[in-house]
Amino acid sequence: MQSSEPKSKTGTDTAKLHGSGELALLEAIRARAEGLGRPKPKSRVQLGIGDDCALLRPRAGEELAVTTDLSIEGRHFRLDWHPPESVGHRTLARGLSDLAAMGARPVAAFLSLGIPRGLTVTDANSAANSAAWVTRFLDGLMALAAEHRVPLAGGDLAESPIAIADIVLTGAVPQGEALLRSGARPGDRIYVTGTLGGAAAELAALEASPASFAGATAAGGPAPHLYPQPRVAQGLWLRKRGLASAAMDLSDGLSTDLAHLCEESGVAAEVVAAALPLGTGATLALALHGGEDYELLFTAPAAAKIPRRIDGVLVTAIGRIRARKAGAPAAILRTEKGPMPLESRGWEHFSATK
Amino acid sequence: MQSSEPKSKTGTDTAKLHGSGELALLEAIRARAEGLGRPKPKSRVQLGIGDDCALLRPRAGEELAVTTDLSIEGRHFRLDWHPPESVGHRTLARGLSDLAAMGARPVAAFLSLGIPRGLTVTDANSAANSAAWVTRFLDGLMALAAEHRVPLAGGDLAESPIAIADIVLTGAVPQGEALLRSGARPGDRIYVTGTLGGAAAELAALEASPASFAGATAAGGPAPHLYPQPRVAQGLWLRKRGLASAAMDLSDGLSTDLAHLCEESGVAAEVVAAALPLGTGATLALALHGGEDYELLFTAPAAAKIPRRIDGVLVTAIGRIRARKAGAPAAILRTEKGPMPLESRGWEHFSATK
Repeated sequence: MQSSEPKSKTGTDTAKLHGSGELALLEAIRARAEGLGRPKPKSRVQLGIGDDCALLRPRAGEELAVTTDLSIEGRHFRLDWHPPESVGHRTLARGLSDLAAMGARPVAAFLSLGIPRGLTVTDANSAANSAAWVTRFLDGLMALAAEHRVPLAGGDLAESPIAIADIVLTGAVPQGEALLRSGARPGDRIYVTGTLGGAAAELAALEASPASFAGATAAGGPAPHLYPQPRVAQGLWLRKRGLASAAMDLSDGLSTDLAHLCEESGVAAEVVAAALPLGTGATLALALHGGEDYELLFTAPAAAKIPRRIDGVLVTAIGRIRARKAGAPAAILRTEKGPMPLESRGWEHFSATK
Repeated sequence: MQSSEPKSKTGTDTAKLHGSGELALLEAIRARAEGLGRPKPKSRVQLGIGDDCALLRPRAGEELAVTTDLSIEGRHFRLDWHPPESVGHRTLARGLSDLAAMGARPVAAFLSLGIPRGLTVTDANSAANSAAWVTRFLDGLMALAAEHRVPLAGGDLAESPIAIADIVLTGAVPQGEALLRSGARPGDRIYVTGTLGGAAAELAALEASPASFAGATAAGGPAPHLYPQPRVAQGLWLRKRGLASAAMDLSDGLSTDLAHLCEESGVAAEVVAAALPLGTGATLALALHGGEDYELLFTAPAAAKIPRRIDGVLVTAIGRIRARKAGAPAAILRTEKGPMPLESRGWEHFSATK
């Protein structure tokens, strides 16, 4: 990025990796970022990588949605399990999913990356994938960025004892029109996009046979854990039509996220177990508590006409919003055996690392 | 933040620390964030912590400056050396300094925090400072945030094997008026705010006697390493008056940062050694290469009237911009012994951790 020689110094906004690979890596990231398109005169990104800050220019009447998501080696991914492309893809997908939940159009991403030096060098012993971990990580991240046409406008880079990636996503939404968690009202129907529990089921299968991680690729069909698809188009569709009363993304699992939505809206909810769209290999328990599906959870008035599919993705009514009553559970699950409280129970992933 | 019980689950936009302290910590952060003021109808922060994204609304004719800075245990700070308040202060100061360099007014901060569980619990063995590390970290961060009236509008929280903090700062600047690195022209004078090398000198003194870290507090006068003061007011002053042709903050050290500025502007520079304002305990070498001063480096046309102080902070002319010549060094240092190339040489801090 600069003409100066590599330095043994970190701790700044242009903090660098020590050693000869650092400038090459910064150059590579900048070149890749510019490969997605340099700022144009009317672009919302007026200035990208290369100064103290990036400059974003929302259009008149727009707000900017901002979200950050931290991914940590051993907590959110494992170096010995996850293909680097998957780690990069999931890093960006988490942020895009938050934008989708607000009905925001992606404007720019910022990546703060801390990595051990070993992940920046080519692995000469690996015949199949000789590229450095960080190169493959960026491959995965940039492929999803290109798909959603979101430029990488800045970030930070530092050497770190473990790999960590913090992704910042910014998105544009007309003032006052963002989909919020707080708008659900009694009588509203509850919907989800896609299917639930598939990510947890895929991870469980991979955990049972870690060697299968290496064979998993983005090209091999649906992979909800390794390559989740953020529902940006669906969020935009809902926001533009003004049909949804509330929305959020499903990251913690339906039981937990629905509780959040009810809490922010001051309502209760009733979910019909038989109505839940199960992902491949998913059980009811995984659909309720598995998490990391990155589907949208939204509510809409009963009179709203919600289609069966939005931009090709399944939409399913799974229950309805009720008034909150003191002493009663915030969420009820209707099953064949009758109603029962729907408790928030996250699914413990990466249990092998605990 | 939510009514649900603590869960053993991370990996989401509301990723939580495991164990009973996690909800309390999230509640504490949200309460502190709201203590700085809840969004007002005309506020640039329309929506803060609690949804999938925060919503920022720049005023008509404004751009939004965005910067991220990663701080990693063992690289940017040491748990056994730095008071937690200093780590929190420095985390935010780095981001504010980037905004200052653009002449941007701080709008909102976002904090992604990964910490070991042990840092969230009270240290019963410590009589002097029994509060948990994270509480004291937030004390330091929030004190500086209050000083600059910048709300904490979001972020992420996760358990991590090492402490890491990524700070995102957003700031507002009138369209097209941001101070850039790329505007320096031959004949311009070069200026710095404050003094140089003081942060490196303070760190060297602390390293020589690590026990002195514990005694160092924010109250004890200037502490350029532990409690650097970002020059937000000075950046705003320069931007509003349109006097500076280029600006950046001094984080890597003058020799390195000036090279960046010259590179982005396509010019060369000449610095007068005797003109450099040395910080307490600083040598010429530390002033040139020490880094982490978080002062502003800026250029202005020779005819521009730059005052001796801006908002109480010293401003010093240290040299001038020259045309770049092929084969000649990008920067020259004028000394008593004559001119010599000014090489970019970062100062190796935390060398004990390497």
